Amino acid sequence: MTLSLPYTIPPLDEHAAQQAAQRQDRLTKPTGALGQLEKLSIRLAAMTGRLDYRPDRRAVLVFAGDHGVTQQGISAYPADVTAQMVLNFLNGGAAINVFAAQMGARLRVIDAGVASTFSDDVRAHPAFIDGKIAHGTQDFSVGMAMTSAQAQASLALGARAFESVYADGLDIIALGEMGIGNSTSASAIIAAITGSEASLVTGRGTGITDETLSHKITLIERALTINAPAEIDTLMRVGGFEIGAIAGAIIAAAANRVPVVLNGLICTAGALIAAQIQPAVLGYLIAGHRGAEPGHRLALEHLGLDALLALNMRLGEGTGAVLAFPLIEAAMRALQEMATFSDAGVSDREGT
Amino acid sequence: MTLSLPYTIPPLDEHAAQQAAQRQDRLTKPTGALGQLEKLSIRLAAMTGRLDYRPDRRAVLVFAGDHGVTQQGISAYPADVTAQMVLNFLNGGAAINVFAAQMGARLRVIDAGVASTFSDDVRAHPAFIDGKIAHGTQDFSVGMAMTSAQAQASLALGARAFESVYADGLDIIALGEMGIGNSTSASAIIAAITGSEASLVTGRGTGITDETLSHKITLIERALTINAPAEIDTLMRVGGFEIGAIAGAIIAAAANRVPVVLNGLICTAGALIAAQIQPAVLGYLIAGHRGAEPGHRLALEHLGLDALLALNMRLGEGTGAVLAFPLIEAAMRALQEMATFSDAGVSDREGT
Repeated sequence: MTLSLPYTIPPLDEHAAQQAAQRQDRLTKPTGALGQLEKLSIRLAAMTGRLDYRPDRRAVLVFAGDHGVTQQGISAYPADVTAQMVLNFLNGGAAINVFAAQMGARLRVIDAGVASTFSDDVRAHPAFIDGKIAHGTQDFSVGMAMTSAQAQASLALGARAFESVYADGLDIIALGEMGIGNSTSASAIIAAITGSEASLVTGRGTGITDETLSHKITLIERALTINAPAEIDTLMRVGGFEIGAIAGAIIAAAANRVPVVLNGLICTAGALIAAQIQPAVLGYLIAGHRGAEPGHRLALEHLGLDALLALNMRLGEGTGAVLAFPLIEAAMRALQEMATFSDAGVSDREGT
Repeated sequence: MTLSLPYTIPPLDEHAAQQAAQRQDRLTKPTGALGQLEKLSIRLAAMTGRLDYRPDRRAVLVFAGDHGVTQQGISAYPADVTAQMVLNFLNGGAAINVFAAQMGARLRVIDAGVASTFSDDVRAHPAFIDGKIAHGTQDFSVGMAMTSAQAQASLALGARAFESVYADGLDIIALGEMGIGNSTSASAIIAAITGSEASLVTGRGTGITDETLSHKITLIERALTINAPAEIDTLMRVGGFEIGAIAGAIIAAAANRVPVVLNGLICTAGALIAAQIQPAVLGYLIAGHRGAEPGHRLALEHLGLDALLALNMRLGEGTGAVLAFPLIEAAMRALQEMATFSDAGVSDREGT
C-alpha cells in the first residue's frame, strides 16, 4: 500500500458499548426487540464513547467526479450530467437538497474531478468546495485511472472536506457522490478488493440495457487485467477522484470519532478503499441504504455491515444516507429515554 | 360476513396518481431512482387526491387487549404485562413514547379489553381512551374468542378512537398494539384468511422457546378446527379486541382518506380483518415495518404491500409504523420540491 493519510483511528470504546448493551437489557421491551436499532445504539456508544450521544449536528458531503471510461459508453446518461447536477445541487433542486433540508443536514458539494470548468460564481458558492484534481480520470479500460499523486490528492481532498464541516461542529456525517460512470469504477473496485467476478458485482447503475451491461462487465474485466499489478493501489488502477475523496473523508471522520453514514454502491467502494489504508475505520461506518446493485450487497457483506434502509433507490448523492438519520437518532433516544423494568414496575420474563 | 361499520370508502384518485407519476418522471433523477419512495408518493396522491399532501399532523393509536389463550402458556411474559405496559405508555416510558415524541405524533392508548381494572386516575389520563369490551377474550383453543356483539363493539371502538384524533386535525395515522398473547391470535387470523398452514405463519412473538413455539402452533391448529364454521367472522373465531379495534380504525381512516401506517404482525392481521369487511381499505394502507415473524411477510404479500422498513424489530406498540413517518414525508417532499430536468437545465437520457 503506497497511499496514506496522517490520521490515527482511535480504538472503539468497549466499556461504553458494554454499558449501552446492559442498559438495553433493562429497558421495558423484550431483549433485542428493537432489532438493528439496539445494535446500532451499542455501536454508536462504542464509536463516540458516550451513552448521551445524539446525531444532532449533521452534514452531508457530495463528492463529484468524472470518469474517462464513460467514453466507452457504459452509462444511460451523457458525462455532461455530472457538471449539470453539481449546479442543480448548488441551486437546491436535487433529491439530496430536499432530504438534507428535511433532516437538518448541512450540504457541501465537492468538485473532486468534474470534467467541466465551473465559473467563478459557482466556485464562490458557499456550499461549493473546489478540489478539482483533474478534468476526469483516465479511461481505465486502456490504462491506469490516475497517478499515484492524484490518488493521494483525492484522499487529502476528502479529509479537507470533512475538516471544513467538522470545524463548525459536527456529530454525524453522511457521504454521497455524483459522477456519470462511477458505478463502473465502484464495481471494478469491489471486484478487485473482494476477489469477485466482475459479472457478480456489476449492475445497471442509473438504468442501462442488457447490451450495455454486458459491455460494462467486459470493460471491468479488461481493466482489471490490463491494470493488473496487485501491489498498485486499487484506487489508482480503477478508481475515481470522488471515490478516493470519500475514502479520505471516512478516514478523517473515524479519526475524530464521528460516525460515518454511507450511501450506496459508490460510497461502499470508497469504504473498501479506506479500509485497505486504515482497517480500523470499519468500526465507525454505518450503512444507510442497500440498493439493488449486486456489488453493493457483496461489498457490505465484506465490510460486515447491515444497511438500515432498503428502499430500492439507485440515486446516489447521499440520499440513502441522509434518510437514515432519523433511525440513528431513534436508536440513541430509545437507549436514553425509555424506562427500565424496575423504573416502570413492569414484570420481566416469567420467574424473573 | 356479519360484521360491518357505517362507513363508505371513497375510490382512490387515479387522476392525482397519474399527475404524480408524470411529475416523478420529469424530476432530476433517473426514472424510478427513488424506488419505493416514488411509488409511495404516487399512492399518497391517490389516497388524498392531493399533490401537495404532507403527513404533518400525526397520531399513533395503541390498542391494548388481553387474550384468554395465554392461560395455555404461549408467551414469554405473564399476562399482567399488558396492563403494566399500558401504565408505562401513559407514564411516557415505552419505546413508542420515545419515537412518537421524536416524530411529533400524538399518542392515544386504548383499553380495548385489558384483563385488569384500571384506577380512576388512569382512566382520566388525557391520552387514555376507555373502551374495555371485556376482561380479555375467551380462550380460543377451547371455543370462540368472542361473541358477535363483542366483535362488532371492537370495530366500533377502533372507529371511535380514530374519530377522536381526527377531530383535532390529522394527516396520517399510525396503528400499534399491546397484548400478551396477541401474536398467537394474529397468526391464527393470518392462517385462516390466507389459507396457510399454522406452522408457516407462526413465530416466536416476543421470544419463546422451540417447545413453546410447537405448543403455540398446535393451539392455533386446534382453534381453527374447533371454531371451524367459515361463515363466522374470523375475528370472533380467533381474534382479539385490540385487533378488531385496529380493523375499525383502518376502516374509519380510509373512509376519511387518511393514510394508515401499519406496524407489524398484529396490525397486519387487523388489516386482513378490515379488508374482509371493506376491501377498498387496501388502497389506504402503508406497511411501516416488516418484522421477523413468518406470518407477517405472508400477510403483507396477501395484501400486496411492501414495507418501508425491515429493522428486525419485534416490539409492536406502533414503533415500526411511527419510525416510517420521515420516509413518508420524504416521499412527498421529493415530489413537491425537486427541480425538473427542464427547470434545472439537466440533460435527460442520451438523445432526449
